[in-house]
Amino acid sequence: MYKAIIFDMYGTIFDMRSLTNGLDQFEEQQADSIANLWRQTQLNHMFLKQIMQCYVPFEDLTKDALRYALDEHEVQYNDEDIHQLFEAFLNLQYFRELPRVFSDIKAKNIDIGVLSNANDSMLMPLVDHSEIGGYIDTVMSVNEVKQYKPSYASYALILKYYQLKRDEILFVSANSWDVTGAASFGFDTVWINRQHSNFDFNGQTPTITVNSLNELVKWLEMQYK
Amino acid sequence: MYKAIIFDMYGTIFDMRSLTNGLDQFEEQQADSIANLWRQTQLNHMFLKQIMQCYVPFEDLTKDALRYALDEHEVQYNDEDIHQLFEAFLNLQYFRELPRVFSDIKAKNIDIGVLSNANDSMLMPLVDHSEIGGYIDTVMSVNEVKQYKPSYASYALILKYYQLKRDEILFVSANSWDVTGAASFGFDTVWINRQHSNFDFNGQTPTITVNSLNELVKWLEMQYK
Repeated sequence: MYKAIIFDMYGTIFDMRSLTNGLDQFEEQQADSIANLWRQTQLNHMFLKQIMQCYVPFEDLTKDALRYALDEHEVQYNDEDIHQLFEAFLNLQYFRELPRVFSDIKAKNIDIGVLSNANDSMLMPLVDHSEIGGYIDTVMSVNEVKQYKPSYASYALILKYYQLKRDEILFVSANSWDVTGAASFGFDTVWINRQHSNFDFNGQTPTITVNSLNELVKWLEMQYK
Repeated sequence: MYKAIIFDMYGTIFDMRSLTNGLDQFEEQQADSIANLWRQTQLNHMFLKQIMQCYVPFEDLTKDALRYALDEHEVQYNDEDIHQLFEAFLNLQYFRELPRVFSDIKAKNIDIGVLSNANDSMLMPLVDHSEIGGYIDTVMSVNEVKQYKPSYASYALILKYYQLKRDEILFVSANSWDVTGAASFGFDTVWINRQHSNFDFNGQTPTITVNSLNELVKWLEMQYK
């Protein structure tokens, strides 16, 4: 059925709650608040830059978002602080159901790819330094087309790497906007809903919704019976 | 100097805090929370639809955003409720320094325009039913080009209506993303910073920052001396 499963990185494979691990000089509540605003601003800036067609590498965008998050929390900083705090994004933890999930998927002869808005300097440390790297066949960064997700040009990158029909590809994300974009482009989609939230409907619904990547594997097993 | 001043509507001329006036069946704290999530979701959906090039009239988008905000607050509703709550957007209050500010600008022989992401069914009730309508020379809706702000195509609509050079136009918004878009397009910009916030820098800075529209008039008076 599906010949390749493409995963989003941030929030889907890597747990964004672990961003606070790199903010350990702040007290817990403040670290949470900074991390939340940092991530929210990063996404917001990314969407706006895509609309204005002002692409910059995700690392630069992420550092600008960090500056704003620190300003809003009235934290003083210099360039060295930004450099050091930014590393929190290079040391995110993957969800613990991986690498088991990837191993199960590979056992079904399904290819595993990643499509991320991050550029290589942010993406490769996560892939290379984690146990899951060995399972990922194709790492795709939108930096190659300089169009962020959820633009169609970004999802079209998958079809450049995989000579497959759209319905042979399953796209997996924990981010509703990413599911919406991939579904709108024409892929079957999986929404990973770990927090039992409402899907933020914006024109498309996911093909299936699961509460964990383990559930995704169970669903695949039913499809392949 | 400037021959036309173009204003954003929501948050710039009309006070978004007055959105809760139309949510009076909820207790105050819940009304605030619903209104905030409604507005935030409306903007988020708009940005994403612009990226995916899936334009829908702002009224439809606003109603979908309302449904999500109500879902998140575990409020039950039917179509009639959506229709009725939506009217909150048609009854927003303008900031009280208007119409005096518009009168002062007109006295300098400067044209006043509005550029909004709202379609006419949302825009015209606000313009027509308020005292400020008489001061606005040109009401521009992005519905004409079906490209939301901050796309360049949306700001280019201003140049279609006004046969002016870009530097003869001043663009005014309380929304940092809108200031960024207009500045990126090439207009001089004014950021109305009523809450004494940090400007959410995303590649551009406003030409001037003022704390109210009254201050904008004072600044104009200095320019025209």
